[in-house]
Amino acid sequence: MNPAITPSDTLAELGEFGLVARVTAGRSHPPGTLLGPGDDAAVVAAPDARVVACTDVLVEGVHFRLDWSTPEQAGRKAAAANLADIAAMGAVPTALLVGLACPVSTPVATLEGLADGLWAEARASGIGVVGGDVAASTALVISVTALGSLEGREPVTRGGARPGDLVALCGRIGWAAAGLAVLHRGFRSPVAVVGAHRVPEPPYAAGPAAALAGATAMIDVSDGLLADLGHVAEASGVLVDVRGAALEVPMRLREVASALGTDPLHWLLTGGEDHALVATFPPGSTLPSGWTVIGTVREGVPAVLVDGRPYAGPGGWDHFTRG
Amino acid sequence: MNPAITPSDTLAELGEFGLVARVTAGRSHPPGTLLGPGDDAAVVAAPDARVVACTDVLVEGVHFRLDWSTPEQAGRKAAAANLADIAAMGAVPTALLVGLACPVSTPVATLEGLADGLWAEARASGIGVVGGDVAASTALVISVTALGSLEGREPVTRGGARPGDLVALCGRIGWAAAGLAVLHRGFRSPVAVVGAHRVPEPPYAAGPAAALAGATAMIDVSDGLLADLGHVAEASGVLVDVRGAALEVPMRLREVASALGTDPLHWLLTGGEDHALVATFPPGSTLPSGWTVIGTVREGVPAVLVDGRPYAGPGGWDHFTRG
Repeated sequence: MNPAITPSDTLAELGEFGLVARVTAGRSHPPGTLLGPGDDAAVVAAPDARVVACTDVLVEGVHFRLDWSTPEQAGRKAAAANLADIAAMGAVPTALLVGLACPVSTPVATLEGLADGLWAEARASGIGVVGGDVAASTALVISVTALGSLEGREPVTRGGARPGDLVALCGRIGWAAAGLAVLHRGFRSPVAVVGAHRVPEPPYAAGPAAALAGATAMIDVSDGLLADLGHVAEASGVLVDVRGAALEVPMRLREVASALGTDPLHWLLTGGEDHALVATFPPGSTLPSGWTVIGTVREGVPAVLVDGRPYAGPGGWDHFTRG
Repeated sequence: MNPAITPSDTLAELGEFGLVARVTAGRSHPPGTLLGPGDDAAVVAAPDARVVACTDVLVEGVHFRLDWSTPEQAGRKAAAANLADIAAMGAVPTALLVGLACPVSTPVATLEGLADGLWAEARASGIGVVGGDVAASTALVISVTALGSLEGREPVTRGGARPGDLVALCGRIGWAAAGLAVLHRGFRSPVAVVGAHRVPEPPYAAGPAAALAGATAMIDVSDGLLADLGHVAEASGVLVDVRGAALEVPMRLREVASALGTDPLHWLLTGGEDHALVATFPPGSTLPSGWTVIGTVREGVPAVLVDGRPYAGPGGWDHFTRG
């Protein structure tokens, strides 16, 4: 590493090896990281002889904007999107890897911030960033891969919902969408909703807890509640009926929606990126702490209804039946 | 999936879900893929309770150009770069995941070609593409993550070379660099060298074979023979001396170099992207089939020499001592 490099210098000055040395130096890895960064590949423990794996891509200007979020917030968001997918299988995370493409003019401080954010979110889950790669590009793209362990359990897929099951939700919905709407109007507050867009707070522990409680299907809300329940409905071959009254609209979202002249329920039903978890449980289940029943599973042509009817809000139902 | 979509249509028409449906349909997975694409995450067997994992990022215009390579060739190259890293640990691959960022104007045919290439290289190694994500971007970026199994062996790192060890090579070096030089001059032949740039042919099986034969350190040649031996020298705290006469310059590379007025040895010593494997073995080892001794490990300040001297070719030594 060149000691003459300062945070205002760019990737061009630092070089790939210099960047890797800088963002990996001084990080401590948990015991599950059997071989960390610095070799051709990492080695991670997979205690039950299976590994859960997923990849999520975030693009600057699409999933985050560096004039709206700090690099650290963007890094945390990239990690969180993947860690929520691991939780949605009923698994616990074991490692992250990151593929970064960015302009050579990207300041070192930005790249260090991204790395710090990835590490902060990883550490909060007790894991490390075990490997990665960086390449020059005209766009800033963060591709994160998360690995996880099912701890001996069966994965909770999207395809196990059965007629009669309860539909339950854990975590916030609509907050990130409200935050994005606020930012699009040129405001930077209220901090609570803008912060939700910048760094989601998925209820990671609720995923394994739901699996232990017998969840039959589960997904994280990344495309919006109705869209993601639509994936469950399609994979399970069932109809999902959400009870509108079960979705309490938080006062803060009501206030923000009122100020912007829009309907807050729309954020709850169609807003993604909070990475709440939604799952189905056999009828009569005792739900784990933090889970709330929001509907029921019925026989029928796969679809998602709200109070027995297709949701007709703007950008609502039609968007989610494509594909 | 919309049946009205044609190959000349773009990602904008097809949509993310449509693309995923299209590139995953009809693929058959090996038994090690316990849960394939279509859920929040995949589940892959990790028989010895450890998983090897690495990520490599390829950018259009940097690592490949779609006017020089077909999308399928680019997909195979992206897979090969990662599979070679798995082999360099002495491991066998178990799965690929892909994070793709691309303009929404990208033709469906291009995306299908990329997927076909990833799948072709995966299938050749007996594995599948178990997951991924796609996002809109101004640049075409392919971030591939490969998973692998050590089959109960210890990983062969870069850090195990000891004074007295033999240095041995398996696979081609210099061919991809020659192909790139040809393409830069505006030619499309000879096919043998241009093809080497388009789709590397790493000697995957040689990695686990070297591990079984007692290799003390190993790396795949992605940055160039001297650069990658430099990583081994530094990680192991040793001096590596390459015997120039052991590096036979193939007649085809001599011919191409002569036509371009350059030195073919330079391609062999500094050209990356063929993903040959280079490893160190204890003195007196019987090398597995395909491996050739090209030098020795000595005590000394970490460095790579050619016939006892620093390589002084253009873009040679200095480039690799930075960082």
